Amino acid sequence: MKNYIQAEEWNIIEEGFDPHLNKISESLFSLGNGRMGQRANFEESYSGDTLQGNYVAGVYYPDKTRVGWWKNGYPEYFAKVLNAANWMGLSIKLDNEELDLNLCKVTDFRRQLNMKEGYLERSFTAELKSGKQVMVTAKRFFSIANDEVAALHYQFKTLNCSGKLSVSSFIDGDVKNQDSNYDEKFWDEVSRTQNESGSYLTMRTKKTEFEVITGVKTLVFKNNDQLQVTADPAVKDKYLAELVSVDIAEGELIDIYKIATNLSSQNLAPAELTEKAAEILNAAILKGFSALLEEQTAAWATKWEEGDIIIEGDIAAQQAIRFNIFQLNQTYTGKDARLNIGPKGFTGEKYGGSTYWDTEAYCIPFYLSTAPQEVSRNLLIYRYKHLEKAIENAQKLGFDKGAALYPMVTMNGEECHNEWEITFEEIHRNGAIAFAIFNYVRYTGDQVYLQEYGLEVLIGIARFWKQRVNWSDARQQYVMLGVTGPNEYENNVNNNWYTNTLAAWCLRYAAEAAAIVKKEDPARYAEIVKKTSLQEEEEFGAWKSVAENIYLPYDEEKGIFLQQDGFLDKEQTLVSELPVSQRPINQKWSWDRILRSCFIKQADVLQGMYFFEDNYDLESLRRNFDFYESRTVHESSLSPCVHSILAAKLNDGEKAYEFYLRTARLDLDDYNNDTEDGLHITSMAGTWMSIVEGFAGMRVRNGKLSFTPFLPEEWNSFSFNIGFRGVQLKVKVKKEEITIVNPAKELMDINIFSQLYNIPEGETVIAYKGLTV
Amino acid sequence: MKNYIQAEEWNIIEEGFDPHLNKISESLFSLGNGRMGQRANFEESYSGDTLQGNYVAGVYYPDKTRVGWWKNGYPEYFAKVLNAANWMGLSIKLDNEELDLNLCKVTDFRRQLNMKEGYLERSFTAELKSGKQVMVTAKRFFSIANDEVAALHYQFKTLNCSGKLSVSSFIDGDVKNQDSNYDEKFWDEVSRTQNESGSYLTMRTKKTEFEVITGVKTLVFKNNDQLQVTADPAVKDKYLAELVSVDIAEGELIDIYKIATNLSSQNLAPAELTEKAAEILNAAILKGFSALLEEQTAAWATKWEEGDIIIEGDIAAQQAIRFNIFQLNQTYTGKDARLNIGPKGFTGEKYGGSTYWDTEAYCIPFYLSTAPQEVSRNLLIYRYKHLEKAIENAQKLGFDKGAALYPMVTMNGEECHNEWEITFEEIHRNGAIAFAIFNYVRYTGDQVYLQEYGLEVLIGIARFWKQRVNWSDARQQYVMLGVTGPNEYENNVNNNWYTNTLAAWCLRYAAEAAAIVKKEDPARYAEIVKKTSLQEEEEFGAWKSVAENIYLPYDEEKGIFLQQDGFLDKEQTLVSELPVSQRPINQKWSWDRILRSCFIKQADVLQGMYFFEDNYDLESLRRNFDFYESRTVHESSLSPCVHSILAAKLNDGEKAYEFYLRTARLDLDDYNNDTEDGLHITSMAGTWMSIVEGFAGMRVRNGKLSFTPFLPEEWNSFSFNIGFRGVQLKVKVKKEEITIVNPAKELMDINIFSQLYNIPEGETVIAYKGLTV
Repeated sequence: MKNYIQAEEWNIIEEGFDPHLNKISESLFSLGNGRMGQRANFEESYSGDTLQGNYVAGVYYPDKTRVGWWKNGYPEYFAKVLNAANWMGLSIKLDNEELDLNLCKVTDFRRQLNMKEGYLERSFTAELKSGKQVMVTAKRFFSIANDEVAALHYQFKTLNCSGKLSVSSFIDGDVKNQDSNYDEKFWDEVSRTQNESGSYLTMRTKKTEFEVITGVKTLVFKNNDQLQVTADPAVKDKYLAELVSVDIAEGELIDIYKIATNLSSQNLAPAELTEKAAEILNAAILKGFSALLEEQTAAWATKWEEGDIIIEGDIAAQQAIRFNIFQLNQTYTGKDARLNIGPKGFTGEKYGGSTYWDTEAYCIPFYLSTAPQEVSRNLLIYRYKHLEKAIENAQKLGFDKGAALYPMVTMNGEECHNEWEITFEEIHRNGAIAFAIFNYVRYTGDQVYLQEYGLEVLIGIARFWKQRVNWSDARQQYVMLGVTGPNEYENNVNNNWYTNTLAAWCLRYAAEAAAIVKKEDPARYAEIVKKTSLQEEEEFGAWKSVAENIYLPYDEEKGIFLQQDGFLDKEQTLVSELPVSQRPINQKWSWDRILRSCFIKQADVLQGMYFFEDNYDLESLRRNFDFYESRTVHESSLSPCVHSILAAKLNDGEKAYEFYLRTARLDLDDYNNDTEDGLHITSMAGTWMSIVEGFAGMRVRNGKLSFTPFLPEEWNSFSFNIGFRGVQLKVKVKKEEITIVNPAKELMDINIFSQLYNIPEGETVIAYKGLTV
Repeated sequence: MKNYIQAEEWNIIEEGFDPHLNKISESLFSLGNGRMGQRANFEESYSGDTLQGNYVAGVYYPDKTRVGWWKNGYPEYFAKVLNAANWMGLSIKLDNEELDLNLCKVTDFRRQLNMKEGYLERSFTAELKSGKQVMVTAKRFFSIANDEVAALHYQFKTLNCSGKLSVSSFIDGDVKNQDSNYDEKFWDEVSRTQNESGSYLTMRTKKTEFEVITGVKTLVFKNNDQLQVTADPAVKDKYLAELVSVDIAEGELIDIYKIATNLSSQNLAPAELTEKAAEILNAAILKGFSALLEEQTAAWATKWEEGDIIIEGDIAAQQAIRFNIFQLNQTYTGKDARLNIGPKGFTGEKYGGSTYWDTEAYCIPFYLSTAPQEVSRNLLIYRYKHLEKAIENAQKLGFDKGAALYPMVTMNGEECHNEWEITFEEIHRNGAIAFAIFNYVRYTGDQVYLQEYGLEVLIGIARFWKQRVNWSDARQQYVMLGVTGPNEYENNVNNNWYTNTLAAWCLRYAAEAAAIVKKEDPARYAEIVKKTSLQEEEEFGAWKSVAENIYLPYDEEKGIFLQQDGFLDKEQTLVSELPVSQRPINQKWSWDRILRSCFIKQADVLQGMYFFEDNYDLESLRRNFDFYESRTVHESSLSPCVHSILAAKLNDGEKAYEFYLRTARLDLDDYNNDTEDGLHITSMAGTWMSIVEGFAGMRVRNGKLSFTPFLPEEWNSFSFNIGFRGVQLKVKVKKEEITIVNPAKELMDINIFSQLYNIPEGETVIAYKGLTV
């Protein structure tokens, strides 16, 4: 755990230069706008330890799978997020001496991520080996107002010296992925051009043949006089640069502005890329850095209006939750239904693939509340677009008749994972996708989604479950053998309660959704029946039979659901009995020992009780919570949030807050020593859930919001903005008190502390715990 | 399945040259002498498809493990059989045109592996592109009389031409493993020297620093006149050659003799290698090719005397069983307790590591009966020598207090495998090692082995089982969770009946062995108690408690043992219902589908009933056999033999013969399309078991041999030679009749058809089925 980030409400601040922290900071200070992004690498050369990273959303490469022992059914290729061309590099030489912080004495180093306005600023004073001292301030951002544009302002000043300054402002496309399986480079050069309008490098990915053009224009001023920038004659493959040379006197100021654009053939015909890039670049140059930054500030103001959380009385918590919200919004903006939320966003290349079940289970609730409805709708449509691939995927595993199994990890709908116990067996992901549809419709009331997209997906998923179970003669029930639940610390188990429960729910919900669509839009329904060759009577009957007769392991004596067959055969020890020296067990124990222990990685039975909470009374929840949580090591960053929400529901505020703390500053404080690889983007949504669903107890029931809030003792108050069915609500929680502002044009019914409040238009209601209205 | 090998009693014969079959033949015609070996690569250059392979026993390289997803506890290195220097290469040029069968018209091609005398012969006529026709006969062998020597006689004749012949006879150490994980080469050159006595190349393995010297001396004769051979001036790294150039007239004969030696630093100090190699080479040259071959013939005659099986009435079967016996004897001679039986022997590099549980379960019975007692004793001592590493291995997985877990695959005692469900969970291998000790003592009567070596191993293994089980509160019995049984088509199961049964047996046998040693040699016992810190009372008590209270799944209704918990929850279908198009399932089905099916790869419950057959009555065996065999797909080459033996016991001769056929010609007919990678050496021992334990029903009970033979209908008779407690018996089985010759100096008691026969010294007994003596 590190503690070098200063607590500040709206900013992430690092002061002083420590090369050992550089890769961590490169992750923390990352920038992105949903379309492209970048680690906080230095603009100028840096020969120290760094992970260079530039990413373009949706552009992937099918790297050859590397695996110890091949299993039939493994994907041959593994779609990876690609490291792309670096547009912001500057090679700065003073009297031929390169500015490189690794070779300088660095003072007054400061990095600041301004989350309110969406930019990164860095400043430092450096003494070169020659003794020359220079001062730099650099500010850059990726525009969310125009997500094809990024901009940099780099200010350079000599302090104790004069000399000849040369600045080579380059685009470098000769990059590779650190995790490339066979050390391949994934990009070929298509073209390099330089003209008045700027410099343009077009690269094409091998195999997938995405073309991405990176265009930059560099403007340089000395004491506000513009200097001439020319093409740098030092050319290389996949690389081009603009050059300026100038004599600089002591104390003189050089301002370098670099405006960049990234366009990809996902959105434009390859032939159009250059022209369009020049057009965008020209417009941006004309606008100028300051105006672009103003747009950025305004766009971020809207984001914060939609989804800020304000915590009073705890600056570290305030900073943390804003950091989580900021990074989520940098990662995904919901404008493009082909994109999704990579576990590292634009902050690193680890994991590969962009989509896990994290999206459905954790991120959708966040975007549902904090972004226009379109955003979560697009996340659902993403899966709809992959339905055909999911059907193919299921076919590869021996399923047929339109059964769909969504991949564990994917970029383009194809499976990207190759651990058999996960790829083939962690199939509950299919259920999370169905649940997300349900959750979306519940929150938004958008039943039309079922007609247009949802039902087809639900049918594919229901068919999968129907085929995946088998009838056990021994048990006279349906069983589901050989699965891995959310608790990945058990593999290839039989009758995972969560998976069986979810499967039964999916089978019922698919039939319900079919009935709704049939009623609301018979024509569309007929179309779907035809398209999917749905045998209504036969299939619905079969689904119902499985849903009603599936075996759900339960222990009468303890009154708990059993995570899987044989769970009580395990030696029952508690995490509290586990010596600190043995944790985290995934670093200390061999895999088999983990598997046969009763220790749980993340919510499994409890995940199910969270999804379907209305089916279980509080006492049952408490028994299961007490049993399972005490055996849970929370070694997934996704684990604490569900526990936090359930603890809050069980009225255990202290525990709820404890779980919240486990993820809120996970990256900022580098708890797991892995922030340098990139940020844990998807678990950030879990942190948001802990506050809104946990502390504020927000739920949607029968189309109405409800709250049962509590205030963590450590805080004075917390408030948040959420959108619900077109209304932007402001909610503020104080001790045993909640204030809700209804800015809508009509009366809103909201349940608070289990009582119905009718809040007139434009009014504010203050509700108190224990007070009957 | 191929059918190009001609059926012949003592020879493997290929006629006609088909380049597509070349790699298969390279495997089939492989040579070895337990110390070194070689695929049947051509001596002269060959630019066609080939897998070059030369191997030196015990010389390995720890290649970096390549694995898709790392699990804690995986070995970082994977010890591999190394491809070593090629000593027999000849570059033959006629008027500068290289002899290369890939570029010639080849006629009269014939390859013959003479199993009786232990050599490989090849002859052909080749027409070069120039139209020149030449004729070649090459004969080579690896001496089992002197296992440091190999020899080649290569005869070359011009048919329709004259010209300048140049022969460069080389040693090539610049080789790599086809399966090298990171394309590394594993050998560095130490030295190259050439002098009167011969040419010597010394190579050293990276990391492991084995030094291996390869010395050759080439003698060349033209029409019986010796020619001068000089050092080839064309030198390269890791390569050196001897050169002869001569004018050759039409019809003239060139005889090339190449004598080689391989010595390694396992047996000699590196400084001594060159001198010793020269000495051995000189002695061999002095002896000459013919005398060396005579020694070889004599040595093989002894091998066949010890372990031949003669089948009358079925030449294909006769050839097959001799091929199996021949290859087993080429692979392992038992002279060196540091060596073991690699699954591919000296015939390929696949699998890596040299030792699997195959050795204990399948090979030990073969060598016990067909080789001096020392041979199987050395196989046991091999594991004794690895005991410390097995204890370390168990420690890595969290076990302590001297618990030993032998590796799944090993070369030097360290684990070489990295599939968690096997490496960490296929722990029944530990039991096979204990069982081999029991089996050895039962067969040989060598109780002293327990004192010297066996008991220490048994204690380590018993301690492992004791710690590996846990008490289930739910069941009030000991359970063993998270294992993989011999049936690798199930992974990470609970309470595998075979493993639990074997574990209980090990715990009892270890305590029995301790009692025996304590009684027979109290001083040695005290030594062992001290060395192992054995807490007699406490540990024996704990072992007993586990052995008595371990859960053994059983289904009352069906009267069968259950392979594992939940086996009857699977959909019960039979292999006979499986469409041919779906087989082999390991090529047609994804792994999860295989896992949740009831189909079994190889004997699991039945393996246990085979090991401990006296504990189960015939009816119980029949119920289990009928249930499990009908679900077994036999997709391991090790599967059929146990089924064959049990079928014979159940009096189902037809089935026993059917199972025998599945492996007997597995490689010769290339059933599985994988012979080109190398031969299935260890399953060859299973074929032998099918005949001796299956058809002849041989067992050892209370120190006495017993037989309950039957004759497969397709055969006229079969006979075999076996050694038993110092006596070489000849056994011949005809229809309902068995003849046994007792060549011993004393009376032998043998049980035949459940009746005791006292066979006087030197006498022959003929016993008839159903006849009471």
